[in-house]
Amino acid sequence: MTTSRIAGRAAVLPTAADVDKAAERLAGIATRTPLVSSRVLDELTGGQVFLKAEMLQRTGSFKFRGAYNKLSTIPQVRRAAGVVAFSSGNHAQGVAAAAALLHMPAVIVMPRDAPASKLARTAALGAEIVLYDRAREDREAIAREIAAQRRAEIVPPYDDPMIIAGQGTAGSEIIEDLAALGLAPDAVIVNASGGGLTAGIALAVKAHEPSAQIYTAEPVDFDDHARSFRSGQRERNAQTTGSICDALMSPSPGELTFEINRTLVGQGVTASEAEVARAVAFAFHELKLVVEPGGAVALAALLSGKVDVEGKVAVAVLSGGNVDADLFARLVS
Amino acid sequence: MTTSRIAGRAAVLPTAADVDKAAERLAGIATRTPLVSSRVLDELTGGQVFLKAEMLQRTGSFKFRGAYNKLSTIPQVRRAAGVVAFSSGNHAQGVAAAAALLHMPAVIVMPRDAPASKLARTAALGAEIVLYDRAREDREAIAREIAAQRRAEIVPPYDDPMIIAGQGTAGSEIIEDLAALGLAPDAVIVNASGGGLTAGIALAVKAHEPSAQIYTAEPVDFDDHARSFRSGQRERNAQTTGSICDALMSPSPGELTFEINRTLVGQGVTASEAEVARAVAFAFHELKLVVEPGGAVALAALLSGKVDVEGKVAVAVLSGGNVDADLFARLVS
Repeated sequence: MTTSRIAGRAAVLPTAADVDKAAERLAGIATRTPLVSSRVLDELTGGQVFLKAEMLQRTGSFKFRGAYNKLSTIPQVRRAAGVVAFSSGNHAQGVAAAAALLHMPAVIVMPRDAPASKLARTAALGAEIVLYDRAREDREAIAREIAAQRRAEIVPPYDDPMIIAGQGTAGSEIIEDLAALGLAPDAVIVNASGGGLTAGIALAVKAHEPSAQIYTAEPVDFDDHARSFRSGQRERNAQTTGSICDALMSPSPGELTFEINRTLVGQGVTASEAEVARAVAFAFHELKLVVEPGGAVALAALLSGKVDVEGKVAVAVLSGGNVDADLFARLVS
Repeated sequence: MTTSRIAGRAAVLPTAADVDKAAERLAGIATRTPLVSSRVLDELTGGQVFLKAEMLQRTGSFKFRGAYNKLSTIPQVRRAAGVVAFSSGNHAQGVAAAAALLHMPAVIVMPRDAPASKLARTAALGAEIVLYDRAREDREAIAREIAAQRRAEIVPPYDDPMIIAGQGTAGSEIIEDLAALGLAPDAVIVNASGGGLTAGIALAVKAHEPSAQIYTAEPVDFDDHARSFRSGQRERNAQTTGSICDALMSPSPGELTFEINRTLVGQGVTASEAEVARAVAFAFHELKLVVEPGGAVALAALLSGKVDVEGKVAVAVLSGGNVDADLFARLVS
C-alpha cells in the first residue's frame, strides 16, 4: 500500500502487491472464472475478444473477491462482532458469503426496491437484512448506526484498499490466462459503479502491461466516471435510480478508486439501455451465459462499436449474473 | 478401431485411441469447455459435483466435436461434393459449422417443428436447409436421396465411429481437468438421445478410470436407453415428439453406440419434464448458464436424487444451450 494525499487528507491506496496478496488469500476459495471467447463476437468486432465470466464467481458476481479479501484481514478478536454492509445486491451477497465462510455475523442494509432475487439470495446466505427507502433514507447513516451499536466493522462497497485489491484478482487472472495463450491485452473494458473493480483490475493489468488501455463502461445517464475523467474531479450522477443496470447506481466515483482510475484508466465509454438489453440478449443467444444488465455494459460498448478493438486483443468483464427471471425474459425475447 | 459383429454383420467400433486422435484434430478448433462447480449443488447432493459446460462449445452444443472429427476424415477429393445431415438442430449446427471451416457445402434435413433458434442458427452458418414433416416423412430417406444426387457424404448424428470418437473428446477433457485437481470421477451422467455422446465419453473415461460408473440420462417417456439396458436389446420409444427435450428425440439407441454402451454404461436414469424444467431454472439462477431442456436431464437426475452421489466425485454433462427465448423464459420464471 502507498499513502497519497486526496483533498488535503492522507489516504492509503492499494498497489499491485496488495492484489497479489489478495490472490493468495482467495486461492482455492474464490472461483477462478474462465475467459470465454466467441467466434461471432470476434467477427463482429474484428478483434480477438475475451470475456471474463464473473457471473460464474461465487454469489454470481465479482463482489465476493473484494468482500472475502477484506473480511479475512479483520483480526480474529474482532470477528465475533461481525460486519455491516450497504448494497443494492451484489456486494450484499459477496459480504454475506464471505462472512458465512469466516463464521462472522453480517448485517446488510439493502434498498427496498433491490431485485427480489438479490434480496432472497442474500438472506439465503445467512445475513440479516435491514431494508431502507432509496429515495428518503441515507444507507450509510443506517449502516454507521448499526455498526456503532454492535461494534461491527463496516465493509464499504468499493472505497477501501482491501476491497479494491480483492477485485483486482480478476485482473491478475486475465493477465495470467492470456499469457498462457501467448497473448497480452491491448484493451480492457470494465463495468463501473463506484470504480472498485476498475481500480483493482487497472492495478493488476497495468503492473504487467503498462501499454494496455483500460476503459470504464457505464449506463448513458450514469456516466459519472466518464465525466469525472474529462473534468478531472469526481462528478455526481443526477439520479441513483431508474436504470435496468441496478448494480451500477453509485452516486459518484469513490475517493480512493478515482485516485487510482484517473491515472491508470482516464477514459470511459457509455451504453444506452437498448444497447445493454441487446448485450444481455447476445450473451443469452451466442454465449449461453446469464449476464445481468449492469454486468453487460462493457459487452454493450464492444457490440455497439464504442470501443474500437479491430486487430486488438480485448477483454470485456461480464461482472455479474444476478438478474430476476422476469426482467431477463423480457430482455432476451 | 475394432471390428465387432452386431446382428450377424461386421461393424467397426471406435476405441479410446480414436478419441485421442479426435482430440488432436480438434485441438485449437473446438473450445475446451470448462468444468463448472457450484457450492449450492455440492450441498444439495452431498457430493463433489462438476458440470461439463458444453453449451459453451462452438455452436452451443457438444455436436461440433463429432461433426468436425468426421468431416476432417473425409478425403480432400471428396470434399467438394459436400455433406448431408439430418437433425432436429444441434447436430445440424455442428455439421454446418464444421463444413464451413473445412470449406465444404452442407445440406441439412431438419424437421419443420425444430426450435426457430436452431433453424435460424443453422442457416446463419451457411448450410442449405431442407425441411420435412416429422410425422409423415422419413428424414433418412430424404437425406439418402440428396446424398445420391450430389454424391455427398451423409454425416449420421450418432451411429458412426468418427462421430462417437469426436464426442468422446469431452470425456478426455473431463478426465484431464479432474486429474489437474487431483480427482477422478466416480460417476459420470450423460444426456442420451442416440447415445453417441455417452459412448464417446464412456470410451474415454473407462480407459482411464475403469471403476467409474457411467449413466445415461433421458426424459421419462423417452427412456429407450434405460429400457434397452434392462432388456439387453435396442428398445424403441413410443413417440419421437412431445417433449421439451427436443434434442433427445431419437427413436432408439444406435447400433454402434448401443454395442459400446451396453458394456461400458449399462444403466440409465430418467427425469420428468417438471424435473428438467427445474434443472434449467437451477442453471439460470445458481450457475448463470443457459442450458436447453435436453441438455439439462443429467443435472435434473442429480437434483432429484436419481443418482446418489453422496461422498462421490460426479460429473454431469450439460450438453447444449440452444433454447428459444420464449421457452427459456417460461422455464425460469
